[in-house]
Amino acid sequence: MSAVAVRTMFRSHPERPSNADAISHCIEACFACVETCTACADACLAEKGVASLIVCIRLNHDCAAVCAATGSILSRANKVGHRQLLEAQLTTCIAFARTCAAECQRHADMHKHCEICAKACQHCVESCTEMLTSMRMPA
Amino acid sequence: MSAVAVRTMFRSHPERPSNADAISHCIEACFACVETCTACADACLAEKGVASLIVCIRLNHDCAAVCAATGSILSRANKVGHRQLLEAQLTTCIAFARTCAAECQRHADMHKHCEICAKACQHCVESCTEMLTSMRMPA
Amino acid sequence: MSAVAVRTMFRSHPERPSNADAISHCIEACFACVETCTACADACLAEKGVASLIVCIRLNHDCAAVCAATGSILSRANKVGHRQLLEAQLTTCIAFARTCAAECQRHADMHKHCEICAKACQHCVESCTEMLTSMRMPA
Amino acid sequence: MSAVAVRTMFRSHPERPSNADAISHCIEACFACVETCTACADACLAEKGVASLIVCIRLNHDCAAVCAATGSILSRANKVGHRQLLEAQLTTCIAFARTCAAECQRHADMHKHCEICAKACQHCVESCTEMLTSMRMPA
Repeated sequence: MSAVAVRTMFRSHPERPSNADAISHCIEACFACVETCTACADACLAEKGVASLIVCIRLNHDCAAVCAATGSILSRANKVGHRQLLEAQLTTCIAFARTCAAECQRHADMHKHCEICAKACQHCVESCTEMLTSMRMPA
Repeated sequence: MSAVAVRTMFRSHPERPSNADAISHCIEACFACVETCTACADACLAEKGVASLIVCIRLNHDCAAVCAATGSILSRANKVGHRQLLEAQLTTCIAFARTCAAECQRHADMHKHCEICAKACQHCVESCTEMLTSMRMPA
Repeated sequence: MSAVAVRTMFRSHPERPSNADAISHCIEACFACVETCTACADACLAEKGVASLIVCIRLNHDCAAVCAATGSILSRANKVGHRQLLEAQLTTCIAFARTCAAECQRHADMHKHCEICAKACQHCVESCTEMLTSMRMPA
Repeated sequence: MSAVAVRTMFRSHPERPSNADAISHCIEACFACVETCTACADACLAEKGVASLIVCIRLNHDCAAVCAATGSILSRANKVGHRQLLEAQLTTCIAFARTCAAECQRHADMHKHCEICAKACQHCVESCTEMLTSMRMPA
């Protein structure tokens, strides 16, 4: 529902961004990553082997923080004249989400929550990459 | 997809919260509200009649801030001994989301983005209310 | 420096809020609490006895989330017509900060970071309480 | 007060990061920037010439979002093996804060809040740059 809501919203934005679908898709993926990373950090904290999950917990929090910023920045649609800032943010977000996905994947066999989180991070990497691509296409 | 992801996640949480479905549903509604409120604030800012939308923009930002906090707090599932804190947060969140919904609704005829945002806020009110109810049921 | 910066800022706000000093003081206390709670959560996570600090870590994160929202909401100075919302937010913030202060205080003898965090939380409780008081005074 | 609190905190962190002073200084500068950018956005919104301040408001919000993420990531002190992620975040943060400082500076003669915000953004640029430098020095 929400993906549709955000997409419809951008279509009614007075500045009518040309890549409204890529933006809304990427916002969705970023906030889904915030949700799963925050929940994964808490589930890891409750595991018996928490000592072996500290790197994972930290990356979860870092990734959630960056994705929340990216989702918020993407929501301010019009980046005329500030394209490089958005590109920098997306590139940094991809780096965090990719690293978090890899770390979570290491624990995926043991912990279902890490497996789900790895997928959400990977999906975020892909959406941010598509967003970067859409920005480089002629409007 | 994401609602399912977060729900599955809570089911794999080592502490197995009894109301995992209500929690994940409410987290989803909170972050959907963050997304629409942030996007609505920016769309309002770009409208010609921005002067008449200042109250709406401020409530959008306030509501986004509270909903982000609520979503994050809900993700730390185990509130044993701190039930009153979660109830206070949900109650405050309902107050902001309800006020923001009412303000956005006032502009719904003029601005599609306000109409969509009003619905997301209203959905958040309902999900937080259901969450409160689920907390008061015997486990 | 920053406390002065924010105070000067509110004095130059076109709407000239009457309680600019209480607002800026409270914003400062909220974000100081965000900083110490986030840092305390990470220091706790790195302690050998992390298993005994899980409640503390969760409260640290919850308190940081609520204080960030409170600081942000306070920055949107003009709450004409929405005084009850700000009161609800401040009251909820006080509840979280007070509980986090008490939990951190329990570990203060063992961990210096918990002692510092307890003080920051307590300072936040006091600033939010003063803010509530300033709101109830005639302008 | 708070700068001292965070610094003392990092000195009591069990992992004793070697550059505790640079970290705490940078966290302080990031959150001071969150505060001033959020307050500046609201003051701009209340100005009569709001239409000419839309770019400034958007950059204020973007900068606040990135600085909040940077401050939070810096608080998770130990970046062993993830140095590149922190460097990416700091570099992106510098880009946003520099652009926001320049935009606010354009309105500094007209609006005191923009002048103050420009300084806070510039201070954030400098602190993040020093943090990057401290990371490249031998421990």
